[in-house]
Amino acid sequence: MQAHELIGQTIAFAASGGLDSCTITRWLTDMGVKVVAITLNIGQPDDPDLEAVRQRMLASGAVEAVVLDGRALLADEGVLVAQAGAKYEGQYWNTTGIARHMTTKLMLAEMKKRGIKVLSHGATGRGNDQCRFQLVTHMLEPDFQVYAPWRDQTFLDAFGGRKEMIDYCQSKNVPIKVSHKKPYSTDSNMLGLTHEAGKLESLDEGAFAIDPEFGVLPTQAPDKLERVEIKFDKGVPVELNGKKVSPLEFFNEANIIAGRNGVGIADHLVENRFVGIKSRGVYEQPGLELLGATFKYLTQLVLDRRAHKFYTQISLLLGEQVYQGYWYDPCSEAAKAALKHFCQFCSGTIAVDLYKGNVIFAAAKDAPNMLYNEEAASMEKVGEYNHADTEGFLKVLGVSARILARQNQITIK
Amino acid sequence: MQAHELIGQTIAFAASGGLDSCTITRWLTDMGVKVVAITLNIGQPDDPDLEAVRQRMLASGAVEAVVLDGRALLADEGVLVAQAGAKYEGQYWNTTGIARHMTTKLMLAEMKKRGIKVLSHGATGRGNDQCRFQLVTHMLEPDFQVYAPWRDQTFLDAFGGRKEMIDYCQSKNVPIKVSHKKPYSTDSNMLGLTHEAGKLESLDEGAFAIDPEFGVLPTQAPDKLERVEIKFDKGVPVELNGKKVSPLEFFNEANIIAGRNGVGIADHLVENRFVGIKSRGVYEQPGLELLGATFKYLTQLVLDRRAHKFYTQISLLLGEQVYQGYWYDPCSEAAKAALKHFCQFCSGTIAVDLYKGNVIFAAAKDAPNMLYNEEAASMEKVGEYNHADTEGFLKVLGVSARILARQNQITIK
Amino acid sequence: MQAHELIGQTIAFAASGGLDSCTITRWLTDMGVKVVAITLNIGQPDDPDLEAVRQRMLASGAVEAVVLDGRALLADEGVLVAQAGAKYEGQYWNTTGIARHMTTKLMLAEMKKRGIKVLSHGATGRGNDQCRFQLVTHMLEPDFQVYAPWRDQTFLDAFGGRKEMIDYCQSKNVPIKVSHKKPYSTDSNMLGLTHEAGKLESLDEGAFAIDPEFGVLPTQAPDKLERVEIKFDKGVPVELNGKKVSPLEFFNEANIIAGRNGVGIADHLVENRFVGIKSRGVYEQPGLELLGATFKYLTQLVLDRRAHKFYTQISLLLGEQVYQGYWYDPCSEAAKAALKHFCQFCSGTIAVDLYKGNVIFAAAKDAPNMLYNEEAASMEKVGEYNHADTEGFLKVLGVSARILARQNQITIK
Amino acid sequence: MQAHELIGQTIAFAASGGLDSCTITRWLTDMGVKVVAITLNIGQPDDPDLEAVRQRMLASGAVEAVVLDGRALLADEGVLVAQAGAKYEGQYWNTTGIARHMTTKLMLAEMKKRGIKVLSHGATGRGNDQCRFQLVTHMLEPDFQVYAPWRDQTFLDAFGGRKEMIDYCQSKNVPIKVSHKKPYSTDSNMLGLTHEAGKLESLDEGAFAIDPEFGVLPTQAPDKLERVEIKFDKGVPVELNGKKVSPLEFFNEANIIAGRNGVGIADHLVENRFVGIKSRGVYEQPGLELLGATFKYLTQLVLDRRAHKFYTQISLLLGEQVYQGYWYDPCSEAAKAALKHFCQFCSGTIAVDLYKGNVIFAAAKDAPNMLYNEEAASMEKVGEYNHADTEGFLKVLGVSARILARQNQITIK
Repeated sequence: MQAHELIGQTIAFAASGGLDSCTITRWLTDMGVKVVAITLNIGQPDDPDLEAVRQRMLASGAVEAVVLDGRALLADEGVLVAQAGAKYEGQYWNTTGIARHMTTKLMLAEMKKRGIKVLSHGATGRGNDQCRFQLVTHMLEPDFQVYAPWRDQTFLDAFGGRKEMIDYCQSKNVPIKVSHKKPYSTDSNMLGLTHEAGKLESLDEGAFAIDPEFGVLPTQAPDKLERVEIKFDKGVPVELNGKKVSPLEFFNEANIIAGRNGVGIADHLVENRFVGIKSRGVYEQPGLELLGATFKYLTQLVLDRRAHKFYTQISLLLGEQVYQGYWYDPCSEAAKAALKHFCQFCSGTIAVDLYKGNVIFAAAKDAPNMLYNEEAASMEKVGEYNHADTEGFLKVLGVSARILARQNQITIK
Repeated sequence: MQAHELIGQTIAFAASGGLDSCTITRWLTDMGVKVVAITLNIGQPDDPDLEAVRQRMLASGAVEAVVLDGRALLADEGVLVAQAGAKYEGQYWNTTGIARHMTTKLMLAEMKKRGIKVLSHGATGRGNDQCRFQLVTHMLEPDFQVYAPWRDQTFLDAFGGRKEMIDYCQSKNVPIKVSHKKPYSTDSNMLGLTHEAGKLESLDEGAFAIDPEFGVLPTQAPDKLERVEIKFDKGVPVELNGKKVSPLEFFNEANIIAGRNGVGIADHLVENRFVGIKSRGVYEQPGLELLGATFKYLTQLVLDRRAHKFYTQISLLLGEQVYQGYWYDPCSEAAKAALKHFCQFCSGTIAVDLYKGNVIFAAAKDAPNMLYNEEAASMEKVGEYNHADTEGFLKVLGVSARILARQNQITIK
Repeated sequence: MQAHELIGQTIAFAASGGLDSCTITRWLTDMGVKVVAITLNIGQPDDPDLEAVRQRMLASGAVEAVVLDGRALLADEGVLVAQAGAKYEGQYWNTTGIARHMTTKLMLAEMKKRGIKVLSHGATGRGNDQCRFQLVTHMLEPDFQVYAPWRDQTFLDAFGGRKEMIDYCQSKNVPIKVSHKKPYSTDSNMLGLTHEAGKLESLDEGAFAIDPEFGVLPTQAPDKLERVEIKFDKGVPVELNGKKVSPLEFFNEANIIAGRNGVGIADHLVENRFVGIKSRGVYEQPGLELLGATFKYLTQLVLDRRAHKFYTQISLLLGEQVYQGYWYDPCSEAAKAALKHFCQFCSGTIAVDLYKGNVIFAAAKDAPNMLYNEEAASMEKVGEYNHADTEGFLKVLGVSARILARQNQITIK
Repeated sequence: MQAHELIGQTIAFAASGGLDSCTITRWLTDMGVKVVAITLNIGQPDDPDLEAVRQRMLASGAVEAVVLDGRALLADEGVLVAQAGAKYEGQYWNTTGIARHMTTKLMLAEMKKRGIKVLSHGATGRGNDQCRFQLVTHMLEPDFQVYAPWRDQTFLDAFGGRKEMIDYCQSKNVPIKVSHKKPYSTDSNMLGLTHEAGKLESLDEGAFAIDPEFGVLPTQAPDKLERVEIKFDKGVPVELNGKKVSPLEFFNEANIIAGRNGVGIADHLVENRFVGIKSRGVYEQPGLELLGATFKYLTQLVLDRRAHKFYTQISLLLGEQVYQGYWYDPCSEAAKAALKHFCQFCSGTIAVDLYKGNVIFAAAKDAPNMLYNEEAASMEKVGEYNHADTEGFLKVLGVSARILARQNQITIK
């Protein structure tokens, strides 16, 4: 889709309030497109003054500028992702991807109220975010269109880089927020921050190259253990250190606690983008990592071997689905239904010690469905299973092992 | 199999030299069974005087006592397991399981030389080790038998616990090694230690409850980063900090380096034993964790998305196979053949920083097959892919997304 | 468990009414065990006179003999298995395994009413049925015991074979049903028949070696197509050839229709038993095959690529779970929850032609959630996707393909 | 890529010799592009006179017209696909996809000899073939370009449909082959035929709507069984009915035998194209289906349960890889390496009966690595496994089953 197709129409633009947002809004407005700027409050730690963003968008020409509160919904999604163990490629929590789905969903609902049928965003043409914006829009509102300036040759011709945008905004008196250039770019929300580009593209820079916003590097964390206790009810964290919390309150508090201990700074070097190329990112996700790690300990107590194997596949599947923009599709919903079955058993309290980036199991209690317990231990003694029974167990397994050997299928030297 | 069936025969016993080994050897000898004690040197850090073990076994009645050197072979297996990323249930390196396969294999070769056809071991009737001993024996020597005293009711009746064994040995003048009782039991080799039972069975004890043998707890590690550089050639670590190393030298050195930084103390709380019950263990595996983590960084650079997905399944599969005693079966060998294809691309040097339990990516270089590189970056600029192309990419993906919506398959509220 | 432990107790025995049932009941009764014979009406086609079975069990010494009607429940399970596509090893419908779960469940409920806590059955010690009986009992009533005479050495010593049982029954005046010996043994219910043992064990006998009970061999079927139309509502067959049907009515009628066309005679040569050995079986499952094949056509219309891949994994998983006796465990229930999500879209009417063993797609209609439809076709023309867009799609995919080549990862010659 | 970028250059065009080939060649030639027409002999049954094709291409303006013999290579690939059991979505042999990889590979080799760096083809912009042409080109020759007229707007504007092409060719005196319009379109090679479009797009038409080229419909096949015997050596068919055959000879002969019995006409209704939409196709693949079915019987005899599970995943994976154009990528090559391990055990002779579309197991022999055999059967009797051992086996399994129950994880009603 190209800008000239939108002249005279009203569109909604997902505005972060940064240089791109201002430039795009001004440029579209000048072309005769009416822009409704929609900004999501997703608890982004690096730019909390959203009223200032709103004003900046209006000053950039937006016919209207709206701030929506997505924090509670994002916290719920964060809990679901932690339950799923849905790390991308099994390695890090894809906090940007989670938020993008939810952001798009809330924007679409707001657009529907106003009769707006074109969603626009400032995501680039090489990344994953554009996929999420577009796929979610098509799945939730198939008759809506998506306009991405960074895939529009007219816009690309006009703005080759950061300097052109600054010059343009200044010439148009757009009140861009003057920020000194960071050595990398960051996308953030209450679940975490994604840092990429700039100096992080170098293979000579590791996670310690970032300047954390959600806490500190492990090297800067206190030199003593901090004990944290989380109580889960059917997979949902309902108490943090003995205090009742909503998911939103959980993340706000957990980010502080885990953040100050250097927990959740993830660097899995490079990842495979949906568009096929490898990109490098460093992540901060203290609260979500704390939640995910404790929930994982709980699943270890609760899921039996067969359940655990299926759960592992669901984790991998959902980790990919959320990354690629398919978090709401039938495949994801089916996987979530399976997950929900498992979560009903995931009640209990897990305590961990945090120490300079480490999350270390400390204690578990009050898990009514756990499969490791005193009763099971004593049960063994009352005769349901004795050591000699495994003689039979192994004889049975041994038959097929021996057939493999006798039929010359063992090739190890 | 029961002891009385063995009277007059010669059997081989896998002897660690501990209380069990002495008791079993004496008891079998007294029954008229000729015991050849075979002890494996697998670089176990907690009991390095294997000549003393040999003498103790002879003093316990063994007709012969042999020490075999399995260190080089175990190091090779450790490298293969790290390449496979074969953590059990995706969580920890199953160093005991790896060693058990190799130990059994070497014992069988030694037994064959001597015409011995019964392998005996002191593994209990509830654990995983008995499965590995038995399945490997059946796969490699299908006509051999396995005798496990801890599954023999006669033996169980005679020796109900540790005290009975000590009394028995003392009454027989068997020179058992007097060790003060540890608060948990440990199985060890150069790849790592497995601690379980005793106080570790409590859900109130975490990883910090152990007293590491391979290094220190994260809290005891130095307060500064230690940089380590590993050079891989087709998946094999060939240089450590610039010095050429064999796999065996690698593990010896890496255990020291990683151990002193508190790396590789793993506690995934409870695991699912092959026999179906949950058990609790805490692991030390500093060198293997260092190797596995750096190799993982390398795979991130080298494997594309499709390869990565298949590799992840191979990791999970082999992690289960080695745990359950099927590391040599046709399924494992096929998976290793696939893995070998991937490893040919895994050359390069990875540097990491170690810090109080953390292994943090620091730098990568000289990886000729990596998919993230300067050439790829510049290539993007010369026109093979432009931002506008993704407009087409997303339009194509968008069609199926929209059909899902229009046919009412999107159920998210 | 052994018979002498049961003296004086009341147990429930799963009685088919055959030679084994009579022998076991008589033998246990003579030992002082009170046997309540429970026979399930599961629509078995080969022995429909269950009142005669009941009388025979009483004549064999049972203190009580009960017939339970499991047909409606079995039909429901058959529908669920067809929805899951849960063929064992992807190859045949495991009708015996399905029935065994349900049979055990109904028996346990009946036992509970009477305060009986020991379930006994006549399944052999090498097969899969014993696993299902035992695992289901343990999962549903963990305090109950299972007694299997064919794993009790006392019983095995007394009855080495068929002849000993016949002699025994005749000597005890037990009115066994005199059947001329079939050349193989059969287990049957309304979902299908399993034939094994006897001449079928030979690798020189194929499916044509059986004498079908549910219809005819393909070679004996009519020489013309028979059209069948099935209407599904959320995955459940609700009409057959235009007539409203319950699942039970569906199977009764579908067995006749598909059976007379030689449909559903399955021979996947040998299968891998839970105990690890290979066994040979030939199956008849006309109605279930008809249902499964038509439902599969419906899923092809309804599931998108991602959903289809996940569904395929669920099929394989549930096919194994039902085979091994885990159809009711948390893993299975989670998989069924995912399946249910997919089934809500599986409404529509599928017509197939049956012809001498073939089930051939003929027509589809009225599938509101299908993804292949007229609207989708015309949509393509109105501009949402044009042929030129794939130029961008392929350029995007091409980047990673080229990087693989340039980094020398393509090894094909 | 667009035509005007090619003016003055020499390109290679994958020419089938049909209306599209002639039109594209003439049109490009007239624009000033030098076209080298390359036609592959892949044993296509519907158009065997490839010298006539060559002449037609020259008459259409090609500067050169070449026929390459790909038959032996395609036969080898067909064997590999059968070994892999690589049906797309588990359902049909993707013969077009297999051939497209190999065709592109041979074309590229020929192009390289001549210094040609642009490959062109007549595949449409909605299908899968364009993906295969492009991805294979990029993987094997990353510096080459692909030009697809059906994605070039200039070409699309000039030729809206079949009529415009016929008019154009007639006006240019291009000697197009006059064929009466078939009610659907067909792509063919010696492994099989793919029929789609036209009347087959209707959901009221089934497989019987086609007019087979490789044999007959099941309804037209003889009314008696035809026995076929195939001898495999490490997975490769080396004898057919007792006669030594190369893979190429195998397919030529097997297509006749299976074709005359109506075997291999596959209709899985609709499939999920790589580009995401569903399309309808009907397939003929008699020889490959015969090979795949017999090989599957052999794997049943040879692969144990663990190997079978891994093999099933490899089948699904490779079925998708070949469909999507990734048959030569590192993921596929790794999977093939695993497959090769399994194939070394796949020697033996399988006999099947063909009957009106059915392939029915008849006999197996001479399979030295099979796990179902007389020795295994007798082995059971000599005491390695007795019925009573499963008492222990089930007690062990029963412990975890009971824990599930006691910890309230069984939710079935």
